[in-house]
Amino acid sequence: MKKLINNPEQVVDDMLAGFLRANAAIVRRSERDPRAVVRVMKEPDTVGVVIGGGSGHKPAFIGYVGEGMADGVAVGNIFASPSPYPILAAMQDMHQGKGILLIYGNYSGDCMNFSMAAELAEMEGIDVKQIIVGDDVASAPQEEAERRRGIAGEFFVYKIAGAKAQSGASLEEVYATTMKANGWVRSMGVALSPCSLPQTGKPSFTLGDDEMEIGLGVHGEPGVRRGPLLPARDVAKELVQTILSDFDCSGGEVAVLVNGLGSTSLMELYIMYDNIADELETRNVKIARSFVGEYVTSLEMGGCSLSILKLDDELKELLNKPARTGCLTL
Amino acid sequence: MKKLINNPEQVVDDMLAGFLRANAAIVRRSERDPRAVVRVMKEPDTVGVVIGGGSGHKPAFIGYVGEGMADGVAVGNIFASPSPYPILAAMQDMHQGKGILLIYGNYSGDCMNFSMAAELAEMEGIDVKQIIVGDDVASAPQEEAERRRGIAGEFFVYKIAGAKAQSGASLEEVYATTMKANGWVRSMGVALSPCSLPQTGKPSFTLGDDEMEIGLGVHGEPGVRRGPLLPARDVAKELVQTILSDFDCSGGEVAVLVNGLGSTSLMELYIMYDNIADELETRNVKIARSFVGEYVTSLEMGGCSLSILKLDDELKELLNKPARTGCLTL
Repeated sequence: MKKLINNPEQVVDDMLAGFLRANAAIVRRSERDPRAVVRVMKEPDTVGVVIGGGSGHKPAFIGYVGEGMADGVAVGNIFASPSPYPILAAMQDMHQGKGILLIYGNYSGDCMNFSMAAELAEMEGIDVKQIIVGDDVASAPQEEAERRRGIAGEFFVYKIAGAKAQSGASLEEVYATTMKANGWVRSMGVALSPCSLPQTGKPSFTLGDDEMEIGLGVHGEPGVRRGPLLPARDVAKELVQTILSDFDCSGGEVAVLVNGLGSTSLMELYIMYDNIADELETRNVKIARSFVGEYVTSLEMGGCSLSILKLDDELKELLNKPARTGCLTL
Repeated sequence: MKKLINNPEQVVDDMLAGFLRANAAIVRRSERDPRAVVRVMKEPDTVGVVIGGGSGHKPAFIGYVGEGMADGVAVGNIFASPSPYPILAAMQDMHQGKGILLIYGNYSGDCMNFSMAAELAEMEGIDVKQIIVGDDVASAPQEEAERRRGIAGEFFVYKIAGAKAQSGASLEEVYATTMKANGWVRSMGVALSPCSLPQTGKPSFTLGDDEMEIGLGVHGEPGVRRGPLLPARDVAKELVQTILSDFDCSGGEVAVLVNGLGSTSLMELYIMYDNIADELETRNVKIARSFVGEYVTSLEMGGCSLSILKLDDELKELLNKPARTGCLTL
């Protein structure tokens, strides 16, 4: 699998250099740690929202730093958690006395390193609250929801946290609202083709020409099942059905994210969106806001995920606030 | 090559249905033709900007309709020109008495059908001016520049035309400014892997595991040469060198677009951007604005293109005006 890179061992640092150069008006490298990226200008007297995770998921996570979303990010190697130091550095840089909300996906390395960074920050007198996102319904049954992984639904959680923090709310308020969003988001994905790590060039898994993986994770973690490649409308039905039977949104309003994993065309994502909207309509769920595109990728993996966020008036208002980050303008 | 679709013969109509549903606040289907898509609300008393071309290049072309860019688009089948009728329909819908600027890429089918539509519109008393984009320096030598194809540089031309039209300028003024942009934009691309048409499922061309195609077109047209897969910095150097030796921008300001063709990750595009910025700096060219992402794709093709637009004060101001379309917020 071919890539436009210079040195497989340095893709993250090389990418970072280009990203920072292209977005110098929005983000800068922390002077405390080269793998911490923070906002050039943060609104004064607001809670700091710090996120992070492994690389290879662009625009997540670095592309979400900016006005109305995250304030800082810690950048790991490809599909690997950042160490506690860039996480701590981002917190230190973005702390303004109102505390820090740390948000990250439910992966063991991230849980360990973010918690350790939180402890280090607390030792410096920084108030820290942590939110672990586990939106992937396919990764564990409801009874073991604490094992569920974080996938593209994280986008919604960051967006809500950033908008709430920007309003000047206290750490307790930002935490409470973001926890509500985190409890109301569910996701599930399908994979049609693998990605390959720059260092090895080898596919992350193999699939037959007529197969797909249902419920696959964003690093090639095993899915619920492997089956024949289905038409978009059958995939849409299974994703909507599984998500809604885990969390009933009928009669309510939701935001929908149809997320491409990397090599799936926008044409396919819009076909999926149409079929998903049909399924939601049939189930009396109203789409108040939709996002279709690449929000959390897995290098050049083929496939997509569906994320659904249940909305109340507060979440709807926060989701609709503008945001301007390195990769997104909302 | 696997795709998330329902029926290979209906991908364009299925995609259109999803796109219109997701962007109903911005675009609508013309009542005159199902393959014409126009803005829901257009500023009164402005020139209409109508674009179009084959499908499979999303966000181009349909994703560029909205505030500050195009007013209407005619949608062809995959990699095939739209017929004159949707082009005419979009012109009729978006005409407000100030004339229509038609913009399209230099492909024989598009040239024929857009010209025919222009004639039909003129017979109805609509003033029409046409701009044909041929930014791909690899597709023909400078002496035969009229044979050059339109690729991702089209994005800049639409953006300038839309911003100028929105200002309330006359058709002559919008045409003159857009022609300036069209004359000052150059592009060149490389392909690492092919795409496949939904109808056939077959790759558009074949390349060895260690090969790349330099100067390839957006439908798999032949490039300048095929060679070994090069590091990003060598690719960046060749693209910048070729473009600048065709159109000297040294000492001036430019806008840069690093465009992914479909399956190339944003990580790779930022690595390319960094190397491109180095090359431009060495040549005393200042980047005033940059865009990195997928703007004109070829289904799931692997690779990228570089587009450079030379700027003066007018173009810079127009490029920096906000825009809000189905796929882009600038």
